[in-house]
Amino acid sequence: MLVVMNQGASDAQVSEVIQKLEALKFKVNRVDGVVHTVLAGVGPADGLEPSEFEVMAGVKECHLIVSPYKLAARAFRPEGTVIKAGNVEIGGKEVIAMGGPCSVESPAQIELAAKIVAEAGGKVLRGGAFKPRSSPYSFQGMGEEGLQIMRAAADKYGLIVISEVMDASQIPLMIKYVDILQIGARNMQNFNLLKDLGRINKPVLLKRGIAATIEEVLLSAEYVMAGGNQEVILCERGIRTFETFTRNTMDISAIPVLKSLSHLPVVADPSHGVGKRSLVLPMALASVAAGADGILVEVHHDPDRAASDGAQTLKPEQFKDMMDKLKLIAAAVGRSI
Amino acid sequence: MLVVMNQGASDAQVSEVIQKLEALKFKVNRVDGVVHTVLAGVGPADGLEPSEFEVMAGVKECHLIVSPYKLAARAFRPEGTVIKAGNVEIGGKEVIAMGGPCSVESPAQIELAAKIVAEAGGKVLRGGAFKPRSSPYSFQGMGEEGLQIMRAAADKYGLIVISEVMDASQIPLMIKYVDILQIGARNMQNFNLLKDLGRINKPVLLKRGIAATIEEVLLSAEYVMAGGNQEVILCERGIRTFETFTRNTMDISAIPVLKSLSHLPVVADPSHGVGKRSLVLPMALASVAAGADGILVEVHHDPDRAASDGAQTLKPEQFKDMMDKLKLIAAAVGRSI
Amino acid sequence: MLVVMNQGASDAQVSEVIQKLEALKFKVNRVDGVVHTVLAGVGPADGLEPSEFEVMAGVKECHLIVSPYKLAARAFRPEGTVIKAGNVEIGGKEVIAMGGPCSVESPAQIELAAKIVAEAGGKVLRGGAFKPRSSPYSFQGMGEEGLQIMRAAADKYGLIVISEVMDASQIPLMIKYVDILQIGARNMQNFNLLKDLGRINKPVLLKRGIAATIEEVLLSAEYVMAGGNQEVILCERGIRTFETFTRNTMDISAIPVLKSLSHLPVVADPSHGVGKRSLVLPMALASVAAGADGILVEVHHDPDRAASDGAQTLKPEQFKDMMDKLKLIAAAVGRSI
Amino acid sequence: MLVVMNQGASDAQVSEVIQKLEALKFKVNRVDGVVHTVLAGVGPADGLEPSEFEVMAGVKECHLIVSPYKLAARAFRPEGTVIKAGNVEIGGKEVIAMGGPCSVESPAQIELAAKIVAEAGGKVLRGGAFKPRSSPYSFQGMGEEGLQIMRAAADKYGLIVISEVMDASQIPLMIKYVDILQIGARNMQNFNLLKDLGRINKPVLLKRGIAATIEEVLLSAEYVMAGGNQEVILCERGIRTFETFTRNTMDISAIPVLKSLSHLPVVADPSHGVGKRSLVLPMALASVAAGADGILVEVHHDPDRAASDGAQTLKPEQFKDMMDKLKLIAAAVGRSI
Repeated sequence: MLVVMNQGASDAQVSEVIQKLEALKFKVNRVDGVVHTVLAGVGPADGLEPSEFEVMAGVKECHLIVSPYKLAARAFRPEGTVIKAGNVEIGGKEVIAMGGPCSVESPAQIELAAKIVAEAGGKVLRGGAFKPRSSPYSFQGMGEEGLQIMRAAADKYGLIVISEVMDASQIPLMIKYVDILQIGARNMQNFNLLKDLGRINKPVLLKRGIAATIEEVLLSAEYVMAGGNQEVILCERGIRTFETFTRNTMDISAIPVLKSLSHLPVVADPSHGVGKRSLVLPMALASVAAGADGILVEVHHDPDRAASDGAQTLKPEQFKDMMDKLKLIAAAVGRSI
Repeated sequence: MLVVMNQGASDAQVSEVIQKLEALKFKVNRVDGVVHTVLAGVGPADGLEPSEFEVMAGVKECHLIVSPYKLAARAFRPEGTVIKAGNVEIGGKEVIAMGGPCSVESPAQIELAAKIVAEAGGKVLRGGAFKPRSSPYSFQGMGEEGLQIMRAAADKYGLIVISEVMDASQIPLMIKYVDILQIGARNMQNFNLLKDLGRINKPVLLKRGIAATIEEVLLSAEYVMAGGNQEVILCERGIRTFETFTRNTMDISAIPVLKSLSHLPVVADPSHGVGKRSLVLPMALASVAAGADGILVEVHHDPDRAASDGAQTLKPEQFKDMMDKLKLIAAAVGRSI
Repeated sequence: MLVVMNQGASDAQVSEVIQKLEALKFKVNRVDGVVHTVLAGVGPADGLEPSEFEVMAGVKECHLIVSPYKLAARAFRPEGTVIKAGNVEIGGKEVIAMGGPCSVESPAQIELAAKIVAEAGGKVLRGGAFKPRSSPYSFQGMGEEGLQIMRAAADKYGLIVISEVMDASQIPLMIKYVDILQIGARNMQNFNLLKDLGRINKPVLLKRGIAATIEEVLLSAEYVMAGGNQEVILCERGIRTFETFTRNTMDISAIPVLKSLSHLPVVADPSHGVGKRSLVLPMALASVAAGADGILVEVHHDPDRAASDGAQTLKPEQFKDMMDKLKLIAAAVGRSI
Repeated sequence: MLVVMNQGASDAQVSEVIQKLEALKFKVNRVDGVVHTVLAGVGPADGLEPSEFEVMAGVKECHLIVSPYKLAARAFRPEGTVIKAGNVEIGGKEVIAMGGPCSVESPAQIELAAKIVAEAGGKVLRGGAFKPRSSPYSFQGMGEEGLQIMRAAADKYGLIVISEVMDASQIPLMIKYVDILQIGARNMQNFNLLKDLGRINKPVLLKRGIAATIEEVLLSAEYVMAGGNQEVILCERGIRTFETFTRNTMDISAIPVLKSLSHLPVVADPSHGVGKRSLVLPMALASVAAGADGILVEVHHDPDRAASDGAQTLKPEQFKDMMDKLKLIAAAVGRSI
């Protein structure tokens, strides 16, 4: 903990900060600069908030030295983590493609989706059985029946299944059918849900919230990992900015940043990142060029009639074209797909 | 639904949009402009997404004419809504002050908080029994015991109680002790929770998410109201922007905007809005000057030793001083406190 | 300069940072923490960039201890600065109202504006002679003739004149007619212009850029002050965020923050802050409640026919009503208007 | 112009809008919906602002149908524009690499930079002779001497020169030495400068401002083009968001979006986009994968001793490595470098 005192802070103010640091078991080193006095506290870090020092009289600012996440930090496993879900490895040399519709609508639709994904070289079938919708008047999903449909289609085509869990109460149901549980962007800081997912032993894919900093993404991963579940996949899917032409602004730089700060695999979701079908291809290529371990893309046999998110969903031939081009990009960065 | 075609869109493209609109039961009016053709569809609005038209060949852009929220709209109750919780009316001529600590820590602490609030003219005691924390290593709250402590102290000082519900499973417990259930910023789009709160008959206070637009706030209110619970209080508490000096950027303009778009009462939370104790007073004054129906402020008998959020929590004498000044501001805008 | 080394940084890496600090004339104090080594450099601060250390091998992060601005800092003149322009004092006990149209259009229009402003208690006439417009096809301003019109009308009604300078080449012309030179938001970091304004001896009003942090506002003020012109008035006028209902998001908290970090007067521009006429009144009241030393508002005798910015421009009776209410708010915070 | 009336708008209010539209030479089509009346005005578009209608009584919202830019729009030259600067073509099949230091410091430094760039396959030498710096106490550039040094080094190695123009007064000097004039992000809306650059016949590279929307970038290009200079190259270089780990958030999706909305070439500047040397490589690869026509990168023979921007500047071997990898990515998307 580094505490920088104001220009002209009194001896009494400096003493008070030293006492507070010592009460928290810090050993304090005092450095008197030309303008400011700095107190460098050596000691414990867990659960401390710099703002509690910043509010003290005479304090200019305060910096936490130790990162607030540990299990998720690159230093915890410098060689990186490869997560195994079914027969699929995420975080290794191979770039993993995950595809499927936004919502499960029918067995026939999912059967077609699984076929499209598998034939183009994808490994994971995605699809929502429970849908979080901004409007209470929109389609809300098929529930358990949707999960059963996903499982059957995935098994038939040699794929594994990823689907979103919206609430802790859905976990027991989800783990019966699903290989990877997805935490949606809106739930990235639903701490009750994160804690419960820390107690299962299936991989979770954690989507970045639209207003979440990179540090907050890693803190949410830490929540899951602190509960015992080390299998967390991070996912960049766009943040909210002032630009409105795209649904969100996809932060491609978050991919190499997360890879450097953490040992966890990082995938990209260009469909939600941009929200427009025509932009999915260039953003998928950019994500893999920037180092993504996988991509998560919406595809539907007839997106113009999809129950949700049709505007950002690829047509079958677009998915195939994307996979062909991704193979070239993956090779260019020394990977395969 | 207004669909604007691209410059040079073909007749076939225009026809396809017309067919899609008609299939959705719209009556279509076609307007051929100098550069663009516009198709104005008259008909139903629920659940439609403009993006489903924007993705069609030849379409430039699309605008939904009818607001996606109805029950929350000002037009639904032009005279405005006054919500009664216990003996307190929110949304009337009186500005309501709600105060208390971030977390419930002990009976003595809450007793002191209730005394401070009541003596200064506050009407509602706030305090968290379940705490959502960004870090899994931070203090997580006292649970039901905390709620009991709040109830007892509030009753003793003639206050009512507001506390945050973090998960649908906590609702039955909360409604035993609490007069207003608060939906935290991180849960503003936890749609399962919103739906369940739509089925109770106690007021809820809905905090704006840090990345939520004003329209999204109203859609979340609509979720609760569509379930049957019309008693929703909106709360501005700061949005996330590029400015990092304050914890969030408090969007004071959202107060008059929400008042104009909706009939629901609007309160302001300057403590979370700025995150620094010294800024709470000016932001509370600004909120009431801008038309807030109430303020929600953190106060603690000894904030430097508070279990959480100490940096933004007022000292007792600061709370008293704020209330004195708020009385003058309230009078200046024709209200009382 | 505080340099925090990575967990596991080598001795060679630590030595290299120490050498770089010493080469820059810093005296280095080394603090070995449980996880990280911290190097606290005592010495000069001017022109140093933390990023030059952050890029070194083994470095985790770096913090500049001394604020990069000095002349603009509160510590430089703790009692605050009152700026005198003509017979008007800005930064004293009186809150100063500045009003007028966006653009100068004709002598009659400005004569009416000056009358409206003066009769309602305003002290400063605003109006643009040179207009920065996003589109090359919009009205671009009357130039010198506009300045002459402003001067004449202001003199007749006992007002002083503020107008925007868009380019260093306009300065000689502006200072012949204008009492306060306004630096527009788009020019806040036009450093050539700032330098040239540092050499004149008239007050300048510096508007915050739509993406400028509070620190950057103060650095731009420092540019002017470093040139010798100490008469800088800061102005909050809204920042760009994800919210699109308002033209910008007015950061009311910037008012008390700037007052605490700097000795310079701070005014607020609610017209540009929100961009909608109906929101100007509540935001003007909020600004003064939060401590603004003045407000800058657009008013026109017939805003629906104004050459620019009509949508955010008050009608005469709205300006009068705002001034009446501002008097009550000013009194509530111990000031006058 | 589409004007949507409020639910319950009176006949008088509708009439007033119709009259205003007709006064502006619009032919009005009226569509009465279930809830709202829509007025679709067919007619002229230049210089109109929707906000002038939105402020009228009874109006809910207003949409401009015709894009406010014309010369910059893709429809103006659907086949795309290839800009020739010296012997270099930008916007064709070849991806163009531009490299060099942030600031010109000495002949020897620029000679080394030109050698690094040319040997690795770059075509354009970049370097700043006039430096815009946030702090008045930072290094401000070598001026004309810097331009002479750039010209000599570029000529020796068969490169062309790009350098930033900070002020209209520098244009005559710049065009003596420079092949492409760069408009910095802070000057993207310096309309006086844009207008003057519209009168020269050399290409300009227009950097996106850190808070500029894509539409505003195109409007600024329109300013230059409306003056007669059609040779504008657009440049994505990062926008300001809430994320602070990177200096800016590079909006990679802006590259394909700009390519679809406009016929102008689009290049990317990953050095400023992220501000950290280690992230330049992945972001350069991502930019070309997403369709960039060129990249602009900072490189220096000894970046740790560079006069400015050292932290984001590549070392020679890093630049060479990036160029090798870019060749593979360019080939993967059917281009060369």
